[in-house]
Amino acid sequence: MLSLPHGEVRTPAFMPVGTAGVVKGLTPDELKDPVGADMILSNTFHLWVRPGHELVERLGGLHKMMAWDRPILTDSGGFQAFSFKSKAKAKEEGVRFLSPIDREWRMLTPELAVEIQETLGVDVAMALDECIEWPADRRRVKASTARTTRWLKRCLAARKHSDRTALFGIVQGGFYPDLREAHARELVDLDLDGYAIGGLSVGEPRDKLLAMVDVAAPVLPSDRVRYLMGVGYPIDIVDAVMRGVDLFDCVLPSRTARFGYLFTDAGRMAIKHARFKEDPRPIEPETCYPLRHFSRAYLRHLFKSNDVLAPRLFTLHNLAFYQRLMQKIRDAIDQGPDALAALREDAVRWSGPWQDPGEVGAP
Amino acid sequence: MLSLPHGEVRTPAFMPVGTAGVVKGLTPDELKDPVGADMILSNTFHLWVRPGHELVERLGGLHKMMAWDRPILTDSGGFQAFSFKSKAKAKEEGVRFLSPIDREWRMLTPELAVEIQETLGVDVAMALDECIEWPADRRRVKASTARTTRWLKRCLAARKHSDRTALFGIVQGGFYPDLREAHARELVDLDLDGYAIGGLSVGEPRDKLLAMVDVAAPVLPSDRVRYLMGVGYPIDIVDAVMRGVDLFDCVLPSRTARFGYLFTDAGRMAIKHARFKEDPRPIEPETCYPLRHFSRAYLRHLFKSNDVLAPRLFTLHNLAFYQRLMQKIRDAIDQGPDALAALREDAVRWSGPWQDPGEVGAP
Repeated sequence: MLSLPHGEVRTPAFMPVGTAGVVKGLTPDELKDPVGADMILSNTFHLWVRPGHELVERLGGLHKMMAWDRPILTDSGGFQAFSFKSKAKAKEEGVRFLSPIDREWRMLTPELAVEIQETLGVDVAMALDECIEWPADRRRVKASTARTTRWLKRCLAARKHSDRTALFGIVQGGFYPDLREAHARELVDLDLDGYAIGGLSVGEPRDKLLAMVDVAAPVLPSDRVRYLMGVGYPIDIVDAVMRGVDLFDCVLPSRTARFGYLFTDAGRMAIKHARFKEDPRPIEPETCYPLRHFSRAYLRHLFKSNDVLAPRLFTLHNLAFYQRLMQKIRDAIDQGPDALAALREDAVRWSGPWQDPGEVGAP
Repeated sequence: MLSLPHGEVRTPAFMPVGTAGVVKGLTPDELKDPVGADMILSNTFHLWVRPGHELVERLGGLHKMMAWDRPILTDSGGFQAFSFKSKAKAKEEGVRFLSPIDREWRMLTPELAVEIQETLGVDVAMALDECIEWPADRRRVKASTARTTRWLKRCLAARKHSDRTALFGIVQGGFYPDLREAHARELVDLDLDGYAIGGLSVGEPRDKLLAMVDVAAPVLPSDRVRYLMGVGYPIDIVDAVMRGVDLFDCVLPSRTARFGYLFTDAGRMAIKHARFKEDPRPIEPETCYPLRHFSRAYLRHLFKSNDVLAPRLFTLHNLAFYQRLMQKIRDAIDQGPDALAALREDAVRWSGPWQDPGEVGAP
């Protein structure tokens, strides 16, 4: 359980992503029911550029503006800044980049990242970290990780509202186990509110991701949150939980929903597939309330007609599926290692490929 | 009150438009609350082409497929067929046209229009009519109106489920008062379930539209529904009600919503306008539930961010506004002519231009 100013978060927890102060297409009421999320993630970079963190503050803060009264975590904006690759330049001062939203050159510093997030009034702010590409050579990773630590210290020094906004640091170190572990230890020495494992899920093979969690997670204190950023498929989440991670976020369930891909207990389903054309059954018996009324055939029709009701309902379904997954994980943890191992087998099925829905779509 | 197999419709009534078996972006639950619609309109042409009326039937009919258990009226498909102007050819047999959905040449006959609608299982089917352009010369209108009558008779002869699907005829006659009146009389002689006034709102000046309602409506029997197709602004609806019309449909409230235009008690509002950038108030105090939480500033942010929550919420708002308008009209009718005249003054304000939101947006 994670206790934050806006409420308790049952852990392990999965945060739906609400980039621009909204989980695309959904109301905050829907995020509570049927989705059942305790906490969401929003993006510092996007809110800074539009509508602007100071405007958000004048509107009463991010919670009031978006009418969501449960905890919010914001990323630091660093990942977005660095993801505009050719247009971002990291210096010791911070990262300078061309914003694709307003086409303005902007400079994000550790101090500004903290100021923006505290101004938004979120429960958890993330320290600005330097994100680098994969693969990257050891010397480059080492220098970048050291900079991330210096930036973290500047973030800590810049805090003005530590009473209402927690600050999490981000373990970097690329894919070098010794650098990862050393960086985790450096961060632990700073006695932070929580710890994230960052710089993963950037295109590397899955075993490399888990190997980094394997070295970083055991170093992090068990009485603080361990947050694996940007992960992932159900099987990734279960595997990371087994390694001690208790907080996740990922665009996967919502982004895939918009393209008509659905997570179901029987496997993944591409609604556009012809096999669903006349299928009178709901997506699955367990699906959330508004979808229980609708046949696969009708949902496929909505999707083929480009009606926005389709991505909206699919987003609800996938996010609710992920929240049910987290509940199953919490239940399995209570029941013991065998239950978690059994759940892992299910998670493999839930994460199966949907490239060929004829093979793996729900039967 | 209009009694139909799927329930009662309070008249005068406004039907939200659900073209492809869905009111864009909304669930049937939302159409009941907060919108409050008793009846919706769906489009025969679209459902015929996709997903196909026979598939709809196999899925239990249109009501079951879209999980809407209140009355549905379908247009005949004629208006859509004729609106693909260069690609439609009317013959005595029916209208042949190139469908823009599946790029197939299709032939819609009066018999097929009835068959499709009865197969969909709707409460009210519309007879296939010939729609012509405005302006059109008298000779052409006269010939077309005569054909519409012949097609109507073929529709009547083609019915197989008159017990569950009512059939309304459509008064044509272009903008020639004597042709309109004569056609209305011809239709009355056929003793139909209900009567629509069609071929209006096709680009003509507003006074020409009302002039046609003026000649047609009094001829139509007062114990049957009088339905003005495709109309309109609040003031158009009030003016038509004053002339005896009691059923309406229009894409206006939902289509404008998707472009960020809102109907409010104080006048029309273009949410994108800079004046709303920092406005902490809701759209209006009376707005429906989920919107009451959200400031104009946040809604503007959602709209500028292209988040699909914006058109969804705006559609809810505008459709609920229209249902409140109809309730006000029904109340005013109960109260007498003075109340209706007073409501007409309000409707002028509600229909004001939104080309310049700086002038007419809500204060």
